[in-house]
Amino acid sequence: MEIHNARIMPIYRKTVPLPDDTPKVRGYDFNNGVDHRALLQSYFNTGLQASNIGVAMNIINSMVDILVTTAGGIEEDLIKCMGSVYMGDFTLPGKDLFKNGINRIGNMLMPDENYTTFQKWMTPILEQMLHEQTTEGTVWTPSKMIHRFGKEINNPDSICYWAYKNEIPIFSPALTDGAIGDLFFLFSVDNPGLILDIIKDIWELNIRAVTAESTGLIVLGGGLSKHQICNANAWRNGAEYAVYINTAQEFDGCDSGARPDEAVSWGKITAEAQSVKVFADASIVFPLIVAETFARHVDKMTLDPGDE
Amino acid sequence: MEIHNARIMPIYRKTVPLPDDTPKVRGYDFNNGVDHRALLQSYFNTGLQASNIGVAMNIINSMVDILVTTAGGIEEDLIKCMGSVYMGDFTLPGKDLFKNGINRIGNMLMPDENYTTFQKWMTPILEQMLHEQTTEGTVWTPSKMIHRFGKEINNPDSICYWAYKNEIPIFSPALTDGAIGDLFFLFSVDNPGLILDIIKDIWELNIRAVTAESTGLIVLGGGLSKHQICNANAWRNGAEYAVYINTAQEFDGCDSGARPDEAVSWGKITAEAQSVKVFADASIVFPLIVAETFARHVDKMTLDPGDE
Amino acid sequence: MEIHNARIMPIYRKTVPLPDDTPKVRGYDFNNGVDHRALLQSYFNTGLQASNIGVAMNIINSMVDILVTTAGGIEEDLIKCMGSVYMGDFTLPGKDLFKNGINRIGNMLMPDENYTTFQKWMTPILEQMLHEQTTEGTVWTPSKMIHRFGKEINNPDSICYWAYKNEIPIFSPALTDGAIGDLFFLFSVDNPGLILDIIKDIWELNIRAVTAESTGLIVLGGGLSKHQICNANAWRNGAEYAVYINTAQEFDGCDSGARPDEAVSWGKITAEAQSVKVFADASIVFPLIVAETFARHVDKMTLDPGDE
Amino acid sequence: MEIHNARIMPIYRKTVPLPDDTPKVRGYDFNNGVDHRALLQSYFNTGLQASNIGVAMNIINSMVDILVTTAGGIEEDLIKCMGSVYMGDFTLPGKDLFKNGINRIGNMLMPDENYTTFQKWMTPILEQMLHEQTTEGTVWTPSKMIHRFGKEINNPDSICYWAYKNEIPIFSPALTDGAIGDLFFLFSVDNPGLILDIIKDIWELNIRAVTAESTGLIVLGGGLSKHQICNANAWRNGAEYAVYINTAQEFDGCDSGARPDEAVSWGKITAEAQSVKVFADASIVFPLIVAETFARHVDKMTLDPGDE
Repeated sequence: MEIHNARIMPIYRKTVPLPDDTPKVRGYDFNNGVDHRALLQSYFNTGLQASNIGVAMNIINSMVDILVTTAGGIEEDLIKCMGSVYMGDFTLPGKDLFKNGINRIGNMLMPDENYTTFQKWMTPILEQMLHEQTTEGTVWTPSKMIHRFGKEINNPDSICYWAYKNEIPIFSPALTDGAIGDLFFLFSVDNPGLILDIIKDIWELNIRAVTAESTGLIVLGGGLSKHQICNANAWRNGAEYAVYINTAQEFDGCDSGARPDEAVSWGKITAEAQSVKVFADASIVFPLIVAETFARHVDKMTLDPGDE
Repeated sequence: MEIHNARIMPIYRKTVPLPDDTPKVRGYDFNNGVDHRALLQSYFNTGLQASNIGVAMNIINSMVDILVTTAGGIEEDLIKCMGSVYMGDFTLPGKDLFKNGINRIGNMLMPDENYTTFQKWMTPILEQMLHEQTTEGTVWTPSKMIHRFGKEINNPDSICYWAYKNEIPIFSPALTDGAIGDLFFLFSVDNPGLILDIIKDIWELNIRAVTAESTGLIVLGGGLSKHQICNANAWRNGAEYAVYINTAQEFDGCDSGARPDEAVSWGKITAEAQSVKVFADASIVFPLIVAETFARHVDKMTLDPGDE
Repeated sequence: MEIHNARIMPIYRKTVPLPDDTPKVRGYDFNNGVDHRALLQSYFNTGLQASNIGVAMNIINSMVDILVTTAGGIEEDLIKCMGSVYMGDFTLPGKDLFKNGINRIGNMLMPDENYTTFQKWMTPILEQMLHEQTTEGTVWTPSKMIHRFGKEINNPDSICYWAYKNEIPIFSPALTDGAIGDLFFLFSVDNPGLILDIIKDIWELNIRAVTAESTGLIVLGGGLSKHQICNANAWRNGAEYAVYINTAQEFDGCDSGARPDEAVSWGKITAEAQSVKVFADASIVFPLIVAETFARHVDKMTLDPGDE
Repeated sequence: MEIHNARIMPIYRKTVPLPDDTPKVRGYDFNNGVDHRALLQSYFNTGLQASNIGVAMNIINSMVDILVTTAGGIEEDLIKCMGSVYMGDFTLPGKDLFKNGINRIGNMLMPDENYTTFQKWMTPILEQMLHEQTTEGTVWTPSKMIHRFGKEINNPDSICYWAYKNEIPIFSPALTDGAIGDLFFLFSVDNPGLILDIIKDIWELNIRAVTAESTGLIVLGGGLSKHQICNANAWRNGAEYAVYINTAQEFDGCDSGARPDEAVSWGKITAEAQSVKVFADASIVFPLIVAETFARHVDKMTLDPGDE
């Protein structure tokens, strides 16, 4: 091969100066000791997903009103008031766990007996709901049922309880998809006819999006709850704030992994919105974000059940 | 540093022989030309996810009865009969697309006008459904609605149509989560009172799982539909066959990413079941699998709508 | 909540027409039977990652000259000529495998005894290399060593052999990182002083990029080999064609997951280049791509070792 | 369908009690205010990847000796002493950045002019190295070069500087793969013959693994550096402690995504080792881990360059 050395010159280009206020990448300096608040604030300039956590903290501190819906979390919110969940491991063999009456959720273990307890608690509530449907013409929806569950559980460990206390609706259109659905199924053997309507709830959800002054989304994970809350905001031509925290990728086209900008194309988030996606497990990220956002304002809130 | 050379010896261990029938890793030999069927059969011994595709093909060819549910796909199955979806790109700016009335789904583009067409088609159907509820006492469920949609669309491009023709129920408990829900919402402004019950559908789904001789799952993607079909199979103490195809990971504990063995702990898949998860985009994998499974038996099937 | 129904109107936007030649999303129609070539061609319009495979096939069929480097693959390319690798499972316990002298690579099993065979084959070659260094002043580089390995292995199953036969250089700057490095280490106990220079190889690699008429990249996986080949192309202000196939994500800033457009910012790929990333396991995707690209032209090639 | 209701019974299994000391899943209680140390300690019982961070903290606090190698980080460690890196965005167009002389690394921006500065700093060092090779017979290896760079940079912002000060070797077998390699290439035009030997370094690395009393690994990211440090530990039949932090998956068989248990099969980590993989971006996780491990002991260390 004949080589023309004259062609080999440094390839470095002239750099057009960045704006003076462009933040420089700079991590926390541990030589100053461990100041956790300063450490978390430094994430903004740390780069990569740490920076996205910093952006998320800023966005959430700008939100006026916040509504978060999580699907499927209803049953675990209630069951945790009745029995414990235990630490396990992702590699425990399913066959052995099944024999021992233990169910695996990632690296956590849910004893099957918790569901027996749950059934005992739930059955008289379902009987009462069917009674109200028959005698009063009540049309049950997921949000109306969850409101009742929050009242009945009467336990400050429960998010449903606090939502009930504060008249915050919780929407969960596929409330049948899990242990509560199993109990509907069992209950129906001897008590057919209980109706759970989801059209009234889509009205209740969307009308709130339409009439709100402004909206902000905090979406943990993907799936149904992410899509449902984003879809509702299309009815106001987009939310003004959005924070996504999940590990899903966009490359297979699933809505779970769609970036905020895909929602902009649908009018679910406004083009001018402050938005960010943090690519990480919410179990790592959300406690840090709470520490720098909601928890800083906890003194100003009136969440104490003894307040009334 | 003082070195004891005597300690440096080959560290290679004696290998205990593997069973004689252990398959050797060996890819396709292109020197023999391109025989696509032989190429796909060679995946079994190619290693990594190619091997999992080979396993999936074997499992699906062993299945007796198959039921596949996909959530959210209902609206797109119907809309595609009314207007086209176009190829786009993952990086097209949401702001510009929004202004142009184009919605992005991954690297595909959905014109917003398709939804206007969809609304015109759907409104008289909803009016008729409300009429039947009022005059005949019909209790609508998602599966009953989808059956009607399949009849009304009357188009062999639609999966709902073929399911209607062959009396295959399609379950979609959160039917309100998307464009159909939007139409329920719009319809309710002037026509309140249509009820969509999901308890009857959880009965219909679970009772099929309970009474089936054997069950096999083909799960494309994650989210609600994966959880719902697995949950139903817990009522028979597990499916006998299971193929998952998705890109979700297990490390954040989401059900979407849970491996088949997590379902074994819950009794959703039997400990003896043939099961595999293929970690890949279904758009790549499913056509290949269909080519080596269902499509090989297509002559024996009676799917022609002119058959009746 | 007071509701202003007048505000609830369809939100559907007017769609600006897409260009007439925008491809419509349309999968393969299995009613026409299974024509594998037509099936693979249909991927272009299937959407999601299937479409990216279609794009990749088109790009590769446009390439003039192709250079592919794979790091670490050297040892396995040579070892496979001496012993088999077996199919296993991702969940086989490491403790048991270690005791049995079996090493796991994903869902494949590598008997440890293969390395003993490899050592026996390699030792006289290293002795000869040291001899040539001492007596002839040879400065060994990874590419020069791999060329010699290709000659010595003399086996048409080996890619190194074919590269040797066709004078195609294989670069692997960290040739010490693996079993070959282990053998250097063992060999050095009694035979210190063999030198493996990597500066000469960076010259050999980069000068090829500088002087090539045009370049095209096919990158399987990430890590060192992806970065190295892209970096070399910065010396010509960018490759004209690029196909990446891997599962790595960009969100943590690693080069493995960087999209082609990140390489454009560095001048590693030209702004006008045809490029695509397929997000999938190469074990699935690469055989399909080979079937529709290289293998179609195999008759025109002169790869037969008996040709000379 | 004929239904046998008698078959529909609760499917809940009897739960075999878990050991009394099984940790219960329980997140941090923000009602007690924000105590960051208590918050981070609570991660152990939070579940999912938060728990893996808790495990990682415990493992690292158990380590006796620690050796961490990072590949490619050398150039950025040096360059950051000469110019800034700026915050950007993952979606900035490569074409525009290229024209402006700005390179993108994920969501960070590296001005190209930093490399010009780097070249000016490096050239006289390379001249001196070639001089020493010629006059003193020095055989340069990556670790020896990096040691010299650490001395020359003489800046407490640099990790290379501190490694030089404390005689901690840094191994980077593919030191040619990046900006330093570019400078070798440029330097070779007028000054051919500088040799960079990697066989001596594999000796230096492996002999440390062989002779250490015990070893512990902290691996950030994947690729070459993960494989190299694990491979070295095979020479002592395994490290006693291992913490992996990365986002790579195992399903495509790449070593980057291999779990610690795959390394156990190779004897790279002992079967009895304390090990964990945290599936997350190191930019999020590593500062938190440092805060609860190394930074707690910083007072006992003698890192001050003014100490001597």
